[in-house]
Parts: sequence; C-alpha cells; structure tokens
Amino acid sequence: MCSPKVARSVQERIRREGLPTFNRRNFLQLGAVGALGALATSLISTRGVARASSFTQVIDLSHVFGVSVPTYIPTEKPQREDFVTVEKDGFFIQRWVYTEHASTHVDIPAHFIADGERADTYPAEMLVGQAVVIDISAKAAQVADATLDLADVQAWERANGKIPEGAIVFMYSGWEARWEDPIAFRNADADDVQHYPGIDAEAATFLIEERNVKGFGVDTLSLDFGASTTFDAHYAILGRGRFGVENVANLALIKDRQATVVIGMPRWEGGSGGPARVLALL
Amino acid sequence: MCSPKVARSVQERIRREGLPTFNRRNFLQLGAVGALGALATSLISTRGVARASSFTQVIDLSHVFGVSVPTYIPTEKPQREDFVTVEKDGFFIQRWVYTEHASTHVDIPAHFIADGERADTYPAEMLVGQAVVIDISAKAAQVADATLDLADVQAWERANGKIPEGAIVFMYSGWEARWEDPIAFRNADADDVQHYPGIDAEAATFLIEERNVKGFGVDTLSLDFGASTTFDAHYAILGRGRFGVENVANLALIKDRQATVVIGMPRWEGGSGGPARVLALL
Repeated sequence: MCSPKVARSVQERIRREGLPTFNRRNFLQLGAVGALGALATSLISTRGVARASSFTQVIDLSHVFGVSVPTYIPTEKPQREDFVTVEKDGFFIQRWVYTEHASTHVDIPAHFIADGERADTYPAEMLVGQAVVIDISAKAAQVADATLDLADVQAWERANGKIPEGAIVFMYSGWEARWEDPIAFRNADADDVQHYPGIDAEAATFLIEERNVKGFGVDTLSLDFGASTTFDAHYAILGRGRFGVENVANLALIKDRQATVVIGMPRWEGGSGGPARVLALL
Repeated sequence: MCSPKVARSVQERIRREGLPTFNRRNFLQLGAVGALGALATSLISTRGVARASSFTQVIDLSHVFGVSVPTYIPTEKPQREDFVTVEKDGFFIQRWVYTEHASTHVDIPAHFIADGERADTYPAEMLVGQAVVIDISAKAAQVADATLDLADVQAWERANGKIPEGAIVFMYSGWEARWEDPIAFRNADADDVQHYPGIDAEAATFLIEERNVKGFGVDTLSLDFGASTTFDAHYAILGRGRFGVENVANLALIKDRQATVVIGMPRWEGGSGGPARVLALL
C-alpha cells in the first residue's frame, strides 16, 4: 500500500477528517478480559452446535524479534528501517533484512539435513501439541553446559506419568532470565566458545523413538549445549523429521501447568525455519 | 551458526559419520495421526491433573510467504537468497528482505494510526479467539468490489445466534481460490484500480462496538474492497485498536465449523504488523 496515488488519497483523508480516536480503554479492557477468562466463558452457536472454549488463558512464550536480540553470531542481528510512515505517506510499513535464525525461531529439518523438510511445506499438525516442560534449572545454575538428559526425562515421567504421544518437549534451564543481556545469554569464554544448556542427543532420540513427540523447545540459543562442536541434538532431532524452537520465553510461567502450545511459524518459502510466535493456551 | 569454526566441525562430522537417516515414514505417520485425532485422544498428567485436549484437527489458514505471492503493489515482492547451505557450510539458512505486508499477514493499529499499538507489544490474548466466518461469496461472484455489510452480519446472527465477545470475524468471499494467479487475485483494471471484496466500515464498527470482537480477517489483499481510496475499514478497525489479517487461506474449510483461531504473528519489533501463521484448531 505505498503507491503515490494511494498515499495521496490517505493524506487527503487525514487532512479532511482527522484521525479516528484510538479507543485504548476499550482495547485494554478486552485484553484484560481475555487474560481473565473470556475465552473460557464465550459460547458460540454454529449450525446448532454450541460449545465453550476449553482454555482460559494465553501465555506468550516468544521474545521480541528485534535488532538487539542475542544471536549465535553476535554480528548477525536482524535489521529494520521505516519503509513508509504515517506522517509522510499516510501509513506505516517497515522493511526487514535478516537471516532465519534469530530470536524465538524454529529449526526445520532442512537446517541441517540436505533433503529435509522446508518451513513452507512442514505439516501444520506438527506445530500444535501438549507442552511438556522439563526443568533442569538446578543443575544449569551449577554448570552452564548442562544438558537435559535421559535421566531428567525419566525423573519427569516418575513424577508426572508417561510423556504423551505428540507432545512438544521444552527444556527449561532458567536461561531465559538472561535474555535482556545478550553477552550473558551467549556466555562466551575468552576463546569465544559459548556456554549454556542444551538437550542431550540420547534424550532427544528416546523422546522421538519411544514417545513419538512432535518437537522440542529450549530457552537458550541452540538445541545443543553452547560448547558443542558436533551438534548431536540438532542431528538427532532434525534428522528424524522433528523441529526445534530456540530462544523460547516464559517457560517458568507454564512449567507446572497444563498447556497446549502453538508454534506460529509463518510458511517461509524454502525456509530452514524462521521467526515464530509461540503461544501457550491454558 | 555460521562461523568458519562451526562450519568446519559440522563438515567433519558429515564426512566422518554421514548424515542420519530422515525417518520419513515415522514422520508422516505422526502427521496423519495428528490430523485424525491424536490431539483429541492424548492424555497428559501434570501434578495430578489429567485432561484431554479439546480439539482434534489443525487447519492451516496461511498461504506460503514467498517471492511470487500476489501483493498490493506488484513490484513489492519478498526476496530470499541462500545465506549458507548444507553442501558448502554444513547447514542451511536463508536471508530475507521484505516489507511487512505480504502474503498472510497482520495489520496492527500502527499501520494507519500514528500512535497506534505496534506488533511487538500487541497483547497475545488478542491473537486467539473463536472464528466466525461470514460467507459473502455469492455476491462477490457477481460484483468484485462487494463488501461484508451490516446486513450480512445480521443474516449470520439470525442463522447462528449472537456473535460472541472476543470472536475473530473472517470475510469469506471465495477470493482465496485465485491466490495462485497474482494477476487475477489483484484484479486491476486498465487504470490499475484493483477490484476485490472487503469489509464495510459500518459492519466493522458494529462488530467492535456492539460485539467486542478482537479482530478481523479477509481472503483478499486488503481489509477494504479493492477500489477503495478512503480505507474506511482500515480506519474503523485499526483506529479502534483491533487488528486485521489479510490474505487468509482455506476459509472454505472452516466456514461452517466450530474453530478456535490462533494468529501466530512473531513479535516484530516496532512493527506495523507482519507475516503470521494463522491456524484453526477444531
């Protein structure tokens, strides 16, 4: 929407009528109601079938996708600029330049596997599942390169029961608390070797082969622990047609709760993955 | 993940061990099971609370985000290129350049309103709601610039009951069938005036003020009908803090069904909106 003709007509309208009032009060009320339970209580009748929504809350598991986010390669930050603005053109659009793996984003098989599935054709059914959050924050507080091991999976199952088929398994390491400090989040040593938690390949393999999970998420920059040079978790997960989400946020808010998670990854053509909105429905 | 050091270690691993086998059979089975009901039947027990998911199917309401999609300005297509490849670098990442309003994407208030909400801070609760699909395909087949009018809302309510608070209302005009032909989808005349259906501002205002809906979606390039020069629907919707999704796909598949829709828009920093995955959970 940026032809000179269109821009002129919008500018004329603004001159003639002014801008409509932004109804912030109404808007915020709706947001609050949404958080408090409108989803649970709304009833809809379609062709005689009335049913209530089954969830009452939306929790955002996504960080902002922006120019100063922590990245695996520190110089590789997304860039954005104003393309048109309301003041000059009548409406506002940004232009983005970025590579696919920044902020909260998905790794799809093609990221590591030459003939692996691409983002645009990856089945939508794979992107929705029950969240299982495995908390390894106690050991991650002791050892930065800690991994979510098979023993952690077994401990979770002893406490909670068998991980259900089609689940999406998240590693909660507590690392999300470092997000606003890119240096601490990447945590590189003097040799630029990174140190943060990741998923152990044996655990990932078990979860796919024995529990048939759909995918994984971590609250760090990589599915593998920071110092990994062999990327065993990436190969274990992507090599079996599963996906991983990196830089997941707010897992502390859902880790002891029942949630359905939706991995809102746009259908990036030919993509190795890409930016996504991850939402938990409770 | 593209430092020379990392790339070398990945290449060495591939030389040493070969690539793991992509387990397509297992993967496809899971996809099929997901579509047929795994979500409905899976049970998860967390801290003693066992509950079944309430939906049985995921329907993708998103088009591919790619270089040849129909766009409002024909020359303004997204661009992508290989940044690194599995063959040369050990892993694959694309680099994207695009402006925010292509393919299935969200318009956020800041797109038209100078001090309107931006994409990264727009509340997550607003992005999930009951889908209400209003079918205007019969009149759109007669007149390309047809609009979803207040009379269409009233007719829907007479047949189905009152539109619930917090719904997300979609215009189904049948235009989605033209998606693969960008010329027919944009449908411009000899003067480059576009012709396709959109939402009438009076209907949008009613749905916000009287039904407190969260947002809107259309299966065309714009919330407004193609020939509009005043963008009344954009002002009515964005000026009231609501969002709109343009180029929604597959509404024919949900229009007579009960669905919760999730607008998976990444948290584009400062964004006027941007690419999104729109998924219906049934």
